[in-house]
Amino acid sequence: MKNEKINDIETFFNPQGIVIIGARSSPGFGYGIPMNLKEKGWEDRLFLVNPKGGQIDGMHVYEKVADVPGPASLAIIIIPAQGIPELLPQLREKGIRHVIIESAGFAETGDSGKALQDETYNILKKHGMRAIGPNCVGIVNTDNKLSTTETIQEAYIPGNTAIIAQSGVFGNILLDKLHLFGLYISKAVTLGNRIDVSEIEMLDYFHKDPLTNVIMMYLEGASNGRLLAKTLYTVTRDKPVLILKSGRTSQGQTATASHTGSLSGEDFLYDGMFSQTGAIRAESLDCLVEFARVFSSQPLPKGPRLGIVTGSGSLGALATDAAVLSGLEVPSHPSTATINEIKKLAPNWMNVKNPLDVGPSGLFKEALGAMMKDTDTDMVLAILTIPHAVFRNFQALGIDLRDWFGELKTIRKLAPEKPALACVVGHQEFLYYATEIAGPDMPVFTSPEMSVKALAALWQYGNWKTKVKK
Amino acid sequence: MKNEKINDIETFFNPQGIVIIGARSSPGFGYGIPMNLKEKGWEDRLFLVNPKGGQIDGMHVYEKVADVPGPASLAIIIIPAQGIPELLPQLREKGIRHVIIESAGFAETGDSGKALQDETYNILKKHGMRAIGPNCVGIVNTDNKLSTTETIQEAYIPGNTAIIAQSGVFGNILLDKLHLFGLYISKAVTLGNRIDVSEIEMLDYFHKDPLTNVIMMYLEGASNGRLLAKTLYTVTRDKPVLILKSGRTSQGQTATASHTGSLSGEDFLYDGMFSQTGAIRAESLDCLVEFARVFSSQPLPKGPRLGIVTGSGSLGALATDAAVLSGLEVPSHPSTATINEIKKLAPNWMNVKNPLDVGPSGLFKEALGAMMKDTDTDMVLAILTIPHAVFRNFQALGIDLRDWFGELKTIRKLAPEKPALACVVGHQEFLYYATEIAGPDMPVFTSPEMSVKALAALWQYGNWKTKVKK
Repeated sequence: MKNEKINDIETFFNPQGIVIIGARSSPGFGYGIPMNLKEKGWEDRLFLVNPKGGQIDGMHVYEKVADVPGPASLAIIIIPAQGIPELLPQLREKGIRHVIIESAGFAETGDSGKALQDETYNILKKHGMRAIGPNCVGIVNTDNKLSTTETIQEAYIPGNTAIIAQSGVFGNILLDKLHLFGLYISKAVTLGNRIDVSEIEMLDYFHKDPLTNVIMMYLEGASNGRLLAKTLYTVTRDKPVLILKSGRTSQGQTATASHTGSLSGEDFLYDGMFSQTGAIRAESLDCLVEFARVFSSQPLPKGPRLGIVTGSGSLGALATDAAVLSGLEVPSHPSTATINEIKKLAPNWMNVKNPLDVGPSGLFKEALGAMMKDTDTDMVLAILTIPHAVFRNFQALGIDLRDWFGELKTIRKLAPEKPALACVVGHQEFLYYATEIAGPDMPVFTSPEMSVKALAALWQYGNWKTKVKK
Repeated sequence: MKNEKINDIETFFNPQGIVIIGARSSPGFGYGIPMNLKEKGWEDRLFLVNPKGGQIDGMHVYEKVADVPGPASLAIIIIPAQGIPELLPQLREKGIRHVIIESAGFAETGDSGKALQDETYNILKKHGMRAIGPNCVGIVNTDNKLSTTETIQEAYIPGNTAIIAQSGVFGNILLDKLHLFGLYISKAVTLGNRIDVSEIEMLDYFHKDPLTNVIMMYLEGASNGRLLAKTLYTVTRDKPVLILKSGRTSQGQTATASHTGSLSGEDFLYDGMFSQTGAIRAESLDCLVEFARVFSSQPLPKGPRLGIVTGSGSLGALATDAAVLSGLEVPSHPSTATINEIKKLAPNWMNVKNPLDVGPSGLFKEALGAMMKDTDTDMVLAILTIPHAVFRNFQALGIDLRDWFGELKTIRKLAPEKPALACVVGHQEFLYYATEIAGPDMPVFTSPEMSVKALAALWQYGNWKTKVKK
């Protein structure tokens, strides 16, 4: 893509000043958005517009766009849909080419809304303007603390993952949730009805964005299937793209049509497109989030061989099944060197195999260290288990559980080039404890199956990338 | 099954008195188990045995089994495996026929362990004794607060779901986790190597147990495939059996063999057995838990038609896809009566369809109420969404969100005969809030896909039960 187009999108994320059309002093978006921006330090670059004039929380409200002193390069529009066609030329007059139209009431509502959307589109094109939306909540940029929607504090923590969503609510509640998984974003965009800016331009933009390493996308339908495929093929050579696509069934397709006016198309075509372009499809919302945690924190594996160290044979077996069914290999043994190392320490009853079930041997940290360094595995899953009554007794007695599980952060560093995850099944207090001792480089999962599915997706992408670059 | 056999299992859950072989004053099972029992009011029926004698926390320790005054009808054995064959006749001498062998070191460790297990088995049979284990943590009974393992307080809250697990650790950590999902148990058993009592006898027992409505089972391999099938067919006519089976792949089968010595067998045979006997197979540990929440709290649906009310079109579409792929129907519209009822209130832009996406109309509670009463749907999913920044503002202003979402507990009661679930995607504070307003009859899920998979499993079982009873 030409730099010009990249720069065009850049204005949405880094505007010089922002005009809010439809600011209000009563609860709702018209109040929440300016308050949010003010709180984040945008007050001196913020211009509120409402025909009623007056003040909102000490900020002047201009009655007309023409009164705005500027400079401003972006408008956030939250007035009813019908008023937007006549508004756009006024903004262009003020030198504002970029608008985020948050208002609903366009193509998603039926024929008359579709006509209004077409009219709006023609005006945008006539004036050389760019628009995100309508029927969306715009963008979030954690780098300059810009959010065009009301966003919780936790979502402003900068990370390396970008989000492309269609629906505004969906983007918003995803941001409400991700921090719980230790997942933080660089930027997010909700595209709504995609009157102008599409998921394809956003992929191009995030491809070039130095703060983004991973792209998560929720898609109801491609704006242009052929171009999406071409773009994905280019982007995935450098950055992983994780896609959750709805409209898999005809009933789901009907639902998306009345939601963002998207034609979702036959699902098998998307499946084919994703696998041929190196995009990773997530089968559920949970998968999308869990995959993103792994892609944003782990190196790509050199091969498909998974080593498992576990305190529970059952969980080891469940993880093994899911790993094999997802396309990984679970060698029946670690390398001879690892076997010898563990056998020196192990009690008679302990089977030194893979999964390596340490049972109550007290050898978890030794086994995990050996598996990390093992030359016959390309990635490692550590399944941590302890009856919680025992955990509480140990805590009460001041016994440090790191004597048992090891200093996970340090053990993880034995092989920084291997993906390594932890999995905890049990009480949430133990989950918090495990998350603390594992640190950010070893994300902790709560599902043995999901943790290996995420590793399998990582291998699928790593393998594709190696092949396509040859 | 004859009453005699039921009574035989009953002694494990309701013993007259308990002997603990291998009680100790140092940390570990030998200390934790007696302490746990004492705390739960079993002190006066508890007899500790250890050749060293002395006292443990004020309780007398008998040096020999012969010294135990009794009466006792159950022994918990936690001494090393080698000592067990000679111990059993001593217990029988004291009138104790029931033993829980928690010690490991039997068939799961290889040939010599297998020989020891065979020897132990012969002694048990010779003396007419019954055993759970070895390589397990025994049982939990929330009714009389009996647990033969260290168990957290939260796991003693009585519920209607029974657990059959093989591995001890697995059973224990499952109990650590379930209360987080609002799921409580009647009884639990971990069977370990199944030297005597098998999952089949336990199914029979829980079938008859008046405190158990739902049976959850984790299985590595059937002890007797033909008999398991016959038993499942009988039990599922009255109570649902949810099964998580590992050993789905040859690598997973190898893992189970070195874990509890189970031969897991070809997976497709199990798939066939479960579907022909009305058992519900869970594809993952998360599925098992989430299904149990629904089966333990919801009525069986009369048909497969799902109505969805949602604040997010995206989540509605994702739930629709997953529902259809799991075998449910999602009619494109609710009944005409419902459409008319909603259209009277709805703004122009709102599509009155199914999923019923209420957007920002403020009509969530009205839409949900109408969908509950709708004659064209057999079950309902309510997807609650709110940007968390807005939630926090409302909380700060003292605005009650029940004005928006409705008094869910009350709305749910409009159709007590229909399964009804809620789903929340977003911040955990909102999840806690939703769980509170929904109450125990409307469990709250965090995954749109999982919530409808659980409803599909409920329909699958309800449908099977209707057919088989004809």
